[in-house]
Amino acid sequence: MIALKNDIFIKTLLKQPVDRTPVWMMRQAGRYLPEYRAIRAKAGSFLDLCTNPELACEVTLQPLERFDFDAAILFSDILTIPDAMGLGLFFSEGEGPKFRNPVRTENDIRNLPIPDPGSDLRYVIDAVSLIRKNLQGKVPLIGFSGSPWTLATYMVEGSSSKSFEKVKGLMYQQPKLMHLMLDKLAQSVALYLNAQIEAGAQAVMVFDTWGGMLSTEDYLEFSLNYAKQVRSLLNTNKSGVEVPTIFFTKGGGLWLEKMADAGYSALGLDWQTDISKARDRIGKQVALQGNMDPIALYGEPELIREKVKSILQKYGKGSGHVFNLGHGILPDVNPEHVKVMVDAVHEFSSQYHL
Amino acid sequence: MIALKNDIFIKTLLKQPVDRTPVWMMRQAGRYLPEYRAIRAKAGSFLDLCTNPELACEVTLQPLERFDFDAAILFSDILTIPDAMGLGLFFSEGEGPKFRNPVRTENDIRNLPIPDPGSDLRYVIDAVSLIRKNLQGKVPLIGFSGSPWTLATYMVEGSSSKSFEKVKGLMYQQPKLMHLMLDKLAQSVALYLNAQIEAGAQAVMVFDTWGGMLSTEDYLEFSLNYAKQVRSLLNTNKSGVEVPTIFFTKGGGLWLEKMADAGYSALGLDWQTDISKARDRIGKQVALQGNMDPIALYGEPELIREKVKSILQKYGKGSGHVFNLGHGILPDVNPEHVKVMVDAVHEFSSQYHL
Repeated sequence: MIALKNDIFIKTLLKQPVDRTPVWMMRQAGRYLPEYRAIRAKAGSFLDLCTNPELACEVTLQPLERFDFDAAILFSDILTIPDAMGLGLFFSEGEGPKFRNPVRTENDIRNLPIPDPGSDLRYVIDAVSLIRKNLQGKVPLIGFSGSPWTLATYMVEGSSSKSFEKVKGLMYQQPKLMHLMLDKLAQSVALYLNAQIEAGAQAVMVFDTWGGMLSTEDYLEFSLNYAKQVRSLLNTNKSGVEVPTIFFTKGGGLWLEKMADAGYSALGLDWQTDISKARDRIGKQVALQGNMDPIALYGEPELIREKVKSILQKYGKGSGHVFNLGHGILPDVNPEHVKVMVDAVHEFSSQYHL
Repeated sequence: MIALKNDIFIKTLLKQPVDRTPVWMMRQAGRYLPEYRAIRAKAGSFLDLCTNPELACEVTLQPLERFDFDAAILFSDILTIPDAMGLGLFFSEGEGPKFRNPVRTENDIRNLPIPDPGSDLRYVIDAVSLIRKNLQGKVPLIGFSGSPWTLATYMVEGSSSKSFEKVKGLMYQQPKLMHLMLDKLAQSVALYLNAQIEAGAQAVMVFDTWGGMLSTEDYLEFSLNYAKQVRSLLNTNKSGVEVPTIFFTKGGGLWLEKMADAGYSALGLDWQTDISKARDRIGKQVALQGNMDPIALYGEPELIREKVKSILQKYGKGSGHVFNLGHGILPDVNPEHVKVMVDAVHEFSSQYHL
């Protein structure tokens, strides 16, 4: 294997000293880039793009050509696992993901298979291998999955939701069935991430997009428990090299102490959470990733630079901070503004790593 | 004026001793009630209902016929102020509120008038008087308004939004203009609530539905500051009787200490926030209102009773807790389930008030 030429992202997640703050961006390979839209138009649908390893590799690498990001993240969808379970993922334009066969009955849940990533999700694993090869050690590659709870929300609702009444209804009415489903999902997520690690992912991230819609007690029981289970099943030692792990619950700012106990190397922070307070609360235990308001990228360059400065200053001195947005970049952001953000992280962060 | 026959809601907000926990429900007059849907069908549009004091009075009183609620809340919309400012509120079926003339330019903001509630919002003030008269002292009447920040989000976006890029764009690009707009809104909200108090509202609540979409520093600067300004302008002494005030930021759980300093008698809690922890943090300073997950009302009666018990037990002994949902009731809830919730609060709460 080629040695990593830039390992500050990995080192930061492990809280080892670095000379500046690493930066990457959730959804950095995506619609805000004209070169992404060009390939997407050629490929056909979003799913055609995800399921074609060569194209997935190409779009994964695109943002690295433009910006000095310190990590690449696998281009894929968070709903590949439910699709591999037979739910029939599809996208209707402008409406987000949907499932042809949502999970509604006890039988649906009992019959859910645990996908074998090597066969059922081969296209993802092949994409990971190919990206890793093509990266040639430039920066590390992040693998990822949706969290068990977040996968379950889409699987039961059948689509995006505002109030989550179907999945919460199941959780409230038939908690045991919900636990059975989440246990299967935790096993599936762990197998999937382990296969990504085996294929070359050098860090992995679990996205809990909808944990923040739960009450505190339900979050602990139905979301965080299964993120913990996933973590406990991960093989994070790849021939003696540690594979750092990141867990992100959007809207999880109230629960950082509990999340920090889940065993991940780092927590992602949404933009609502004050990163200075977050470091006070859990910064001894884990690294932090985040957390600029994605909407700030609509601002003028000077504003973006000020926001970057402010977040770096709030985190303060020492390793353990990966700069990122507090959520994915929005599709109509000007790519030049991303460059301003990345360059500002480079320019202003060395002073915190003396 | 007729004396209040049931004042436990008012007393609880003022943290005076009561013999059980009061209960009401956000959006308690609304679509989940068949009798509401019948009047709504007769009235025509939602706005026709809001702007007709007799009909607004009738639907305000409807839930009190069915359930032993300890307060009535004015039936109205949170966007009456921007409408009175000339923005042209309308509703397209299934899409939420919209404005014909959203606020986009510096001139739009400079030209925003501060509505005179006595003339420009006469229909609301008349509804308050009429409801108060028809209540005959059965329970107190709550007046309300959207918070300045929340009103601003709709006024700039022109409709509901997911990412709030227009209003945050304005906030980031032209903070002074944003402050000018919020200052006008704070003055307008205070005048509006004072007129409601003058007309008979016995408590008032400010709904900050979208404050939780802001970063911590932006929340303090652009939302909480103006909620404070509103509070400082309220006349909360009505001929020697104190009018308690409630402030609610959905998604504000991280900021409770700051919110508690804003001068309101009570804070509303969303369902994500643990009410026991919230009491530890700010319970000495303010009363708390909330916070059952609205989705729990889809559950079976036994589940609803368990959830009620759990929240009462988490708040614990003593006055200062108004039972409510953590957000408005959803339109397709079975009204019988609301009865189960209300009756459970009655049944299980006396033990906490010895």
